[in-house]
Amino acid sequence: NTINSSASPMGAEQIQLLLHMCKEAKKSAYCPYSNFPVGAALLTGDGKFFSGCNVENASSPLTVCAERTAIQKAVSEGNMNFRAMAIASNSEEDFIVPCGACRQVMREFGRDWVIYMTKPDGTYIIRTLEELLPLSFGPENLKKF
Amino acid sequence: NTINSSASPMGAEQIQLLLHMCKEAKKSAYCPYSNFPVGAALLTGDGKFFSGCNVENASSPLTVCAERTAIQKAVSEGNMNFRAMAIASNSEEDFIVPCGACRQVMREFGRDWVIYMTKPDGTYIIRTLEELLPLSFGPENLKKF
Amino acid sequence: NTINSSASPMGAEQIQLLLHMCKEAKKSAYCPYSNFPVGAALLTGDGKFFSGCNVENASSPLTVCAERTAIQKAVSEGNMNFRAMAIASNSEEDFIVPCGACRQVMREFGRDWVIYMTKPDGTYIIRTLEELLPLSFGPENLKKF
Amino acid sequence: NTINSSASPMGAEQIQLLLHMCKEAKKSAYCPYSNFPVGAALLTGDGKFFSGCNVENASSPLTVCAERTAIQKAVSEGNMNFRAMAIASNSEEDFIVPCGACRQVMREFGRDWVIYMTKPDGTYIIRTLEELLPLSFGPENLKKF
Ligand SMILES: [Zn+2]
Ligand SMILES: [Zn+2]
Ligand SMILES: [Zn+2]
Ligand SMILES: [Zn+2]
Repeated sequence: NTINSSASPMGAEQIQLLLHMCKEAKKSAYCPYSNFPVGAALLTGDGKFFSGCNVENASSPLTVCAERTAIQKAVSEGNMNFRAMAIASNSEEDFIVPCGACRQVMREFGRDWVIYMTKPDGTYIIRTLEELLPLSFGPENLKKF
Repeated sequence: NTINSSASPMGAEQIQLLLHMCKEAKKSAYCPYSNFPVGAALLTGDGKFFSGCNVENASSPLTVCAERTAIQKAVSEGNMNFRAMAIASNSEEDFIVPCGACRQVMREFGRDWVIYMTKPDGTYIIRTLEELLPLSFGPENLKKF
Repeated sequence: NTINSSASPMGAEQIQLLLHMCKEAKKSAYCPYSNFPVGAALLTGDGKFFSGCNVENASSPLTVCAERTAIQKAVSEGNMNFRAMAIASNSEEDFIVPCGACRQVMREFGRDWVIYMTKPDGTYIIRTLEELLPLSFGPENLKKF
Repeated sequence: NTINSSASPMGAEQIQLLLHMCKEAKKSAYCPYSNFPVGAALLTGDGKFFSGCNVENASSPLTVCAERTAIQKAVSEGNMNFRAMAIASNSEEDFIVPCGACRQVMREFGRDWVIYMTKPDGTYIIRTLEELLPLSFGPENLKKF
């Protein structure tokens, strides 16, 4: 498996749990302005799970997406090695995809992990970060102090 | 106590724990670009604690502050009633204060809770949200769906 | 006039123009999601005017406020010395106030300039940045390269 | 030309001007924290040009990129039909690419316009928005009021 060459492959159980968690996470969404709840679930390289939801604000620019909430939770508890994220919304018609801002935040932590974009009926599509944000820049491109 | 009229007053122990937690949270900061770690700890109305750190990005606008990380964690686990937040940095000279963006995110969840702005030596100043973001707007000012 | 001690005082004409411009700027707002147009007008230290509107996005966090649009325009044309900003919306009930994020962006360029917060009926309230974002931090608090 | 099927093709002169403007725009950058100036130039469907630079803030999340400054300027002056953007930085090694947040802001205004990503030596690569942000969502995916 080229995507997770240095890790054990994700098991079917882990994937099922991830897909379940993102749906559950949606229930905590604080979205009084859009009425568009989103949930995300994140799996780390060593098998831990973190979930997140969108948290809106009366000033739109201060709203934050579910995907970033999950990543911030993981980072704040010492995890920066990610294998997969799953995202869920109530939209029946579209697979819910991450916005460009979230893709950049994800990309900070690697290009070869995978995103599961789901529909409420349980179907999904999968892409790597590299596929979702090609020609990106990241930590390698900036000098660190 | 007018600030927490509907709640039991914060005990000295809770405050000590909050001040300790924000220092600890700083250790998880992901800040390779600024080298300026910040930690935050949040106390809910029913006595739960959440902590957060700053999570930076190669694209600066996608960086997020410690205070917002803590709030997003709390909201994503069902908590929206906050009593106090404490913030810590390594800056010896200044009490670390929340940026305007964080004040607006805090304000979404009330105006009368309090922020402890600390120095590494353990001293701090306290202000309510109302004092930190006077003449603000929030959920009450917008029609919800 | 302590607010503009190093500059000639703003004339009544300049203020009238600023108040007029922020109303006009509102007409360019791109706000299909909130249907809440906002306009802003900015007066520089040497008498130039810049205006801005809110520019929304299908992903809320990527929305930007009118006040920041005006400031970015001014900066991108070489202006960083500001004297006053006026803000307008269609809300009859409230004087339109800047969000915390905008206050922090304004504060980058000084603490003693003034904000005119208007109602559609032409009335307004005025505050300095220092009053709108007390206990703030800014460029002075960070080491620059 | 499939990219601008409903418009006259961009002329070589327009492209040269766009590439020149993004380099010039870089000179207005306000970037005391990163010391990484970026310039952008935007060409509208009816032949108007707008430029922008990055505008940083002591609080990183409030920094804004050059690309968004250019777009906000154009929108605030009534333009929402874009044909091309060019971006310049001082980085000799890399073609400067837009961050994910900027890609989402660009995408609000269409998927088939093109981005010129340059190096200081005058070379560049070109991609459509669709190529830079595949599988995106935008205005069509959200109900408007
Ligand atoms: Zn997002
Ligand atoms: Zn902040
Ligand atoms: Zn604002
Ligand atoms: Zn950008």
